[in-house]
Amino acid sequence: MISKAQIKFIRLLDQKKYRKKHLIFIAEGAKVAHEILNSSLKVHKIYATANWISENRPLYEGNKDIEAEIVDEDELKKISGLTTPQQVLLLVGVPLTSAKPVIESPLALALDGIRDPGNLGTIIRICDWYGIPKLFCSEDCADAYNPKTIQASMGSIARVEVIYADLPELLHSNPGYMSYAAALDGSIDIHKTQINGKTLLVIGNEAHGISPAIQSLCSHTITIPRYGSAESLNASIATAILVDNFKRMMG
Amino acid sequence: MISKAQIKFIRLLDQKKYRKKHLIFIAEGAKVAHEILNSSLKVHKIYATANWISENRPLYEGNKDIEAEIVDEDELKKISGLTTPQQVLLLVGVPLTSAKPVIESPLALALDGIRDPGNLGTIIRICDWYGIPKLFCSEDCADAYNPKTIQASMGSIARVEVIYADLPELLHSNPGYMSYAAALDGSIDIHKTQINGKTLLVIGNEAHGISPAIQSLCSHTITIPRYGSAESLNASIATAILVDNFKRMMG
Repeated sequence: MISKAQIKFIRLLDQKKYRKKHLIFIAEGAKVAHEILNSSLKVHKIYATANWISENRPLYEGNKDIEAEIVDEDELKKISGLTTPQQVLLLVGVPLTSAKPVIESPLALALDGIRDPGNLGTIIRICDWYGIPKLFCSEDCADAYNPKTIQASMGSIARVEVIYADLPELLHSNPGYMSYAAALDGSIDIHKTQINGKTLLVIGNEAHGISPAIQSLCSHTITIPRYGSAESLNASIATAILVDNFKRMMG
Repeated sequence: MISKAQIKFIRLLDQKKYRKKHLIFIAEGAKVAHEILNSSLKVHKIYATANWISENRPLYEGNKDIEAEIVDEDELKKISGLTTPQQVLLLVGVPLTSAKPVIESPLALALDGIRDPGNLGTIIRICDWYGIPKLFCSEDCADAYNPKTIQASMGSIARVEVIYADLPELLHSNPGYMSYAAALDGSIDIHKTQINGKTLLVIGNEAHGISPAIQSLCSHTITIPRYGSAESLNASIATAILVDNFKRMMG
């Protein structure tokens, strides 16, 4: 039986300030729970239906630090942030990230002011698909531990390290990387270029693009050719297209 | 002053059966309204703030069939489906589409069971960016005139014709097209192929992919190479990456 205090504690984790205070975030659904329980993220507590518990016990029973509590559908509804609650809800520790923003992979990605939690989660999933282990975010980006971000990442948050960093410092402290600012009027057409060597792609805000200060620090501006009439593409769509082209060229 | 009957009529248009009955859909927001008023879509009515009306009158005043009504913030809240209503709401006629699914552009796109209205809207926007004038959808796809689809299309619904069609018939009646079924285990790697000639790309359902019956009618299966660990990509993200690669190769 879940107490009122527990319900209140969990629901408050929808808010960034409480996630920051307790260093705990919520992850929901069988797919996301599976990925997180198979990762190095620290799970504090599992709330799940009897059915989920009986099928998934091997995922966590070796770990004595994880407490599992059976909940019924009504209780799950009370703690869940989803319209249709999905069997399991985890309380997970927010991981510590490196203090210095050091890039290690040949292709890296930085976000300048991505505000929509769903876009951020989708971009985390794109990083995971393309083998980009770290995602650098400016401080004004959406929070990676927002429940909507976790949901959209479809479990990829378990494998991609999201690092909030000062982007000018990131650019300055990684001089071995050529940096490409994505822009609607970028001077390089991604279909008509060749990329070799270490590359940092910078994606800007949904409405305003990359801030002028950051763009001026990048070596190049790059664009996706437009064949039709749409004014722009969604930020996560543009990220996917650019990352795919870079990976194709870099191999 | 909006009547209760008007409010009820507009709110019911959130449901597909009422859109189908009246052949009217809702479009909200300044950007979407601007695109629709500049297109061949038939606008029946404009509900907008005095501010929007005074700034945008030239968009519609030549057209005597369009009735514009000034609403205040409270009234707009009552008719809007958005959490934050945005100055203007249009009632727009659902356009008639061709009875026969004939492809006319060198690259065409068909969706088999895309259920999420947001994904469908994002894909309509991708078609518009890449100059694909018609989007073919199986009957079990989300409705193109769902308010969430209209919102996600960001006005591109004004330029892309969405045609609900029997996909086997589409494939049979366009024999000049090579058809590519997108699949996680597709045999052709999109980064390692060359495409020439007329091409029809088929994208499947978010959870289950393309139905076996449709896949067996396609000439090829095609895949996006995975460099990391994510199990899959979001359907609209995968669509964007594949369309971008096809356009790069076809020019």
